[in-house]
Amino acid sequence: MRGQVPTLSVVLEAIRDRGTVSRVELTRATGLTGATITHAVRKLIQLRFVREAGQVSSGTGTPRRLLALVPEACHTVGIQFDRFRTVTVVLDLAGRVVGRRVDAGAGVRDPQTMTIALAENVNALLAETGIPRATVLGAGIVTYGPQDQEAGVLLTPQPTPAWEGYPLADELAAALGIPVLLENDATAAGLGHAGLGGARSSFATVYMAGGIGAGVMLDGRPYRGSSSNGVELGHISVDVTGAACGCGNVGCLENVAGPTAIVTRARADPALSARIDLDADTLTAFQRIGRAALAGDAEARDLVSASANALAIATVTLVNLFDVARVVLAGDAFADLGPLYREHTQRALARSSFIRAVHAVDVELSTQATDAAAIGGAVTVLRDLFESGRGRRARG
Amino acid sequence: MRGQVPTLSVVLEAIRDRGTVSRVELTRATGLTGATITHAVRKLIQLRFVREAGQVSSGTGTPRRLLALVPEACHTVGIQFDRFRTVTVVLDLAGRVVGRRVDAGAGVRDPQTMTIALAENVNALLAETGIPRATVLGAGIVTYGPQDQEAGVLLTPQPTPAWEGYPLADELAAALGIPVLLENDATAAGLGHAGLGGARSSFATVYMAGGIGAGVMLDGRPYRGSSSNGVELGHISVDVTGAACGCGNVGCLENVAGPTAIVTRARADPALSARIDLDADTLTAFQRIGRAALAGDAEARDLVSASANALAIATVTLVNLFDVARVVLAGDAFADLGPLYREHTQRALARSSFIRAVHAVDVELSTQATDAAAIGGAVTVLRDLFESGRGRRARG
Repeated sequence: MRGQVPTLSVVLEAIRDRGTVSRVELTRATGLTGATITHAVRKLIQLRFVREAGQVSSGTGTPRRLLALVPEACHTVGIQFDRFRTVTVVLDLAGRVVGRRVDAGAGVRDPQTMTIALAENVNALLAETGIPRATVLGAGIVTYGPQDQEAGVLLTPQPTPAWEGYPLADELAAALGIPVLLENDATAAGLGHAGLGGARSSFATVYMAGGIGAGVMLDGRPYRGSSSNGVELGHISVDVTGAACGCGNVGCLENVAGPTAIVTRARADPALSARIDLDADTLTAFQRIGRAALAGDAEARDLVSASANALAIATVTLVNLFDVARVVLAGDAFADLGPLYREHTQRALARSSFIRAVHAVDVELSTQATDAAAIGGAVTVLRDLFESGRGRRARG
Repeated sequence: MRGQVPTLSVVLEAIRDRGTVSRVELTRATGLTGATITHAVRKLIQLRFVREAGQVSSGTGTPRRLLALVPEACHTVGIQFDRFRTVTVVLDLAGRVVGRRVDAGAGVRDPQTMTIALAENVNALLAETGIPRATVLGAGIVTYGPQDQEAGVLLTPQPTPAWEGYPLADELAAALGIPVLLENDATAAGLGHAGLGGARSSFATVYMAGGIGAGVMLDGRPYRGSSSNGVELGHISVDVTGAACGCGNVGCLENVAGPTAIVTRARADPALSARIDLDADTLTAFQRIGRAALAGDAEARDLVSASANALAIATVTLVNLFDVARVVLAGDAFADLGPLYREHTQRALARSSFIRAVHAVDVELSTQATDAAAIGGAVTVLRDLFESGRGRRARG
């Protein structure tokens, strides 16, 4: 189910990281053979992703020709949405975010209406940034699961029954006139954190926005499982006596620790809801509770701590099962509260992870907590391009 | 961290499955190229693992030469032990168990004494079966974790402090005069279930003997994680208000559902311990409770059901995180109770797995519940041989 990070991605990343670079330096940097580098560079020049950039002489030998990235040669779009927010980004070939906007989430809109809105967001962003449409290779649409990624279809009746089975990727591709790939939000957040190529790194991503999910990256590639619906951290049971969940399980992490659960509890507390304005969408209300907690409100702090403790316990389970040495926290719910959750999780792992005597498990907060998943959507399109013939194909 | 199943394993398995077979049929059966098959067959004949076995003419063309396995060409040993039992098996090249014995577990013996006993078990088994020592390629020693598999060392002070850091693989290799590999018991049970090559299958193994563990096989290869200490199902928390565990976590599955927990509870029940003779090692006592439950003892049944329910809930977590479509139950604790645990687990997955609307998750009981882990130890040695230069190396 898992191959190597595609050679073109590795070479492109090495060029990107170094500014200008010779073929010999690339061989050294990537560990690939000279022949493989020559072939990859020829392909990248053909695609106009890379250009010759002068030469340097190095003592006696033949002068070495230098290569440089052409960042504006192409762009990819990433769109992450849930019920509460839509984040749209455009990345250039250097992996830089060259355009970004935040819009309303799906709410209870039907999928047709939302698809039109998603396309309008992209069109507006391209117009604002002046990015030529012809340079946009495709878009990654990123949201919750379960999904049929091959078909580009959501397999859940969220937020309304009309969404289940709606051909989201195909319809968005038709509306935008570019290929579209569907990706899981937590997996995308890992891809966004790792960037293009991802330095072949291995880590788990714990993702919290409207809901809770997770992803695992192994040597720079997402763990996929049998149907690309793995690592569903939000729906593991952390309380066997807990409430039934729509997913079929009881005491699901998401219903104990997620923004919806915390906001519901806050709204049920008359004193707390008198102090904090909770008349907003769930994610905004959650962020207000978070800011109150950080400002010293004891009841808000209790709610957030309960959430952070449950998330930390579930993260210990994730680490005990996947044996990773790094955990990254990403998602809009960590925008302000990231350091608090990071601290709870790091403490729990230091105390309770099965593997702590063998190796440390470090918890870090994504520098792009809010945007990582959208960025990952854009990264997945570029990766897919390089995997042509091997990976799954975009729809449209 | 994960490559392909080695070509020699794949070819050997295809020959084994078919009795006698031509090179052309092998190409068709494996999907490998003719050149790869020719190369692999030459290597296998050189190793004397495969022989020419006559030829068949097929109409007009050149007659095809047939190949057959030489099952007695080599053997590998697998040894699984915990505190309560030691199972030793010898496999021939066809993957058949040609020798087996069961001995006492480690108890509280020191590692030096136990190593001598393990070597004596192997020597006695080889003598009983008349297998020539020169045909024994190596042994896989299989037990609980955490482990440093490269170094062949246990990283836990179980069953006595002297075990922590003891060079088990090196010492056993010295005592036996053959190379020895260290493997995790639950992972080995998966390898044993899949057999050599493993038909590139993907499934999770839930393993219960003295303790509880799990393993995940992906396309015929074990999921390893960052230090080969993943999938520690016995130490995920199923009760956040539960007792502290030596591992650092609270409410660990093993302490809620494992044989030690169930036997401790049974012994605390005067009426139950008057009905069932619990004056035995924990695994034997657990099996007696199991047989009483199956015979209709209500209290025994309650204890076993509580264990089966907790195990089922943890298995839902395992499936929600790894997204597998098959779960195999293996280990001595399932010897009699396997069907009961299978039923509980299958029911929980049908009701609660996140992915059940996308694909079924089937639970099966290993046909070798007691021996799968020991068999897997023997399988891992043969695999390692074929991975020379790529996999980890046996010690000794």
